[in-house]
Amino acid sequence: MNVSELGEFGLIELLADIVDKTKNPKDASWQRLLIGIGDDAAAWQTDGNIQLATTDSLVQDTHFDPDVITWEELGWKAMAVNLSDIAAMGGSPKYALISLALPGKLEIDNVSSLYQGMAQIANRFGVAIVGGNIASADKTVINVTVLGSLESAPALTRSAATPGDQIAVTGYLGLSAAGLRMLNQHLKFDAETTQLLRQAHLTPMPRIDEGQILLHRGVKAAIDISDGLIADLTHMCHESKVSALIKQNELPIHPALKKNFKSDYLQLALSGGEDYELLFTAGSQIITRLRKAMACPLTVIGEITQGKPGQVIVTDADSRIVPWQKAGWEHFKSRA
Amino acid sequence: MNVSELGEFGLIELLADIVDKTKNPKDASWQRLLIGIGDDAAAWQTDGNIQLATTDSLVQDTHFDPDVITWEELGWKAMAVNLSDIAAMGGSPKYALISLALPGKLEIDNVSSLYQGMAQIANRFGVAIVGGNIASADKTVINVTVLGSLESAPALTRSAATPGDQIAVTGYLGLSAAGLRMLNQHLKFDAETTQLLRQAHLTPMPRIDEGQILLHRGVKAAIDISDGLIADLTHMCHESKVSALIKQNELPIHPALKKNFKSDYLQLALSGGEDYELLFTAGSQIITRLRKAMACPLTVIGEITQGKPGQVIVTDADSRIVPWQKAGWEHFKSRA
Repeated sequence: MNVSELGEFGLIELLADIVDKTKNPKDASWQRLLIGIGDDAAAWQTDGNIQLATTDSLVQDTHFDPDVITWEELGWKAMAVNLSDIAAMGGSPKYALISLALPGKLEIDNVSSLYQGMAQIANRFGVAIVGGNIASADKTVINVTVLGSLESAPALTRSAATPGDQIAVTGYLGLSAAGLRMLNQHLKFDAETTQLLRQAHLTPMPRIDEGQILLHRGVKAAIDISDGLIADLTHMCHESKVSALIKQNELPIHPALKKNFKSDYLQLALSGGEDYELLFTAGSQIITRLRKAMACPLTVIGEITQGKPGQVIVTDADSRIVPWQKAGWEHFKSRA
Repeated sequence: MNVSELGEFGLIELLADIVDKTKNPKDASWQRLLIGIGDDAAAWQTDGNIQLATTDSLVQDTHFDPDVITWEELGWKAMAVNLSDIAAMGGSPKYALISLALPGKLEIDNVSSLYQGMAQIANRFGVAIVGGNIASADKTVINVTVLGSLESAPALTRSAATPGDQIAVTGYLGLSAAGLRMLNQHLKFDAETTQLLRQAHLTPMPRIDEGQILLHRGVKAAIDISDGLIADLTHMCHESKVSALIKQNELPIHPALKKNFKSDYLQLALSGGEDYELLFTAGSQIITRLRKAMACPLTVIGEITQGKPGQVIVTDADSRIVPWQKAGWEHFKSRA
């Protein structure tokens, strides 16, 4: 069997299993580990606070096309997707390491722009870029590792969703996927919409402050939306051994998305991916309090139920089940 | 100008400069930073101890040929080269994150073997593999990030070499480069030599214990030999603003290397690279004490002098200067 046939998530399970079966659980590092493979970031107890670590890469022709994204935007995005993983734990990002694989013929100005973009968002969140690595390769691969810390325990996790919890998201859904489609298919919109979609796809803003607010106000379960709402909610339900019910007419759809993608704004919102919004679950009282504390839109879109673990059901305005596939970004599979 | 024309080290300087010029030095992360870009690992002060972090990648067709190295060896090596960077700081490795870019057609068994190899060496040094990322790509890129800690400050650095210090190395030099040549050119040796060279190149053993002994016995300056003795000593002299004098007849050459590579064992030892031995400098009294504390060979090969910063001079048995070029591994340049 090859990697394509098994798929990204099957492979992650297999590799996590190898690590688990070969480890020596008596080693101090394992003893101090709080969250390992399978969440947005790893977490372990130090003598001081709880450390967080995450790593993510952008691969040329898989994640980006250098003819569509500028190098500065690419630097921003490569850092942003990692910061978003720290946000999904409720943490504060602190340090970043950058590992670049680059073709020798790449212009130095492009690499400088890449770093300018990374430094810009790193500085915005007080993150110090402290090291890295450069190697030659046929195509560009940008790997970023971000280390952070947690003010108070426990971290937000994928595995803490509880039946009866409401399911909520920050911001709007589907804008990034719409932006990708606009860029790939050269779609034309008014200047404001173009800017909105371009920014959503190319320079997403990680929800660092919002993640910390969730943590401090008592939320336990969160994930960032990178693969798509249904896909990431499925991850969460799988890890929490619960199921979820989503009302598609409750989804936070930006007016510009509804107007310009009339026939498929729902599909974009449900399975588009790369929104880098936070998807979380909590009791209704906590969510009421959160609305006052948050500057960004916060929308309840459904609830956690005691169904088949990992199952996500979507219903329409008449409470009929809509047969959305478990679509979303998965490496080694074709895009839905 | 493109990346090839500027070269790896010029590019690192340029990027470090961008980070330095754009940073906000008042951010807490920068305030706590002890060692940033330019050493084997980054180091910063936490509320508890000093944290270390390093990242390094192995790129298919740049660093490895899947027809020559097994996937298990590749996993070992990808982890080992990072552990070696922690060793060069005198630290203890604790946690690792793995980011893989893989072709979809790669066999799952190969990825499993890769992880088995990583887990094997990780367990040997008490390192927990706690997270990672998988993406699809045309060719395999294995990026490993290792986080560690330091028992006592300050860390071993590249910038602490002082005129008058002796220069010493652990183990033997040139075996890895000889191993690479053996594998690439299908050279035939006796079984013991074949095993020695193969192991040196494919499954190097990072000098974790030795690095900690150096730190505890008062050594200040160290680097691991990845690019080659002259290249890495040049890095150290550059960072320490000193120069170095190496006696080529003092180099620790394994008898099997001398016997089987009669005409160029010196070149292999001086500029071969990937030895993952520790190169360090210290006063003669410290080195005398170290000899008793270390299980591996420890050889004085020269001394640090007050010459042109970054200059490394090699002399022969008659104290004549040998015109070795500043050869060694550099990405985007052809190999010496």
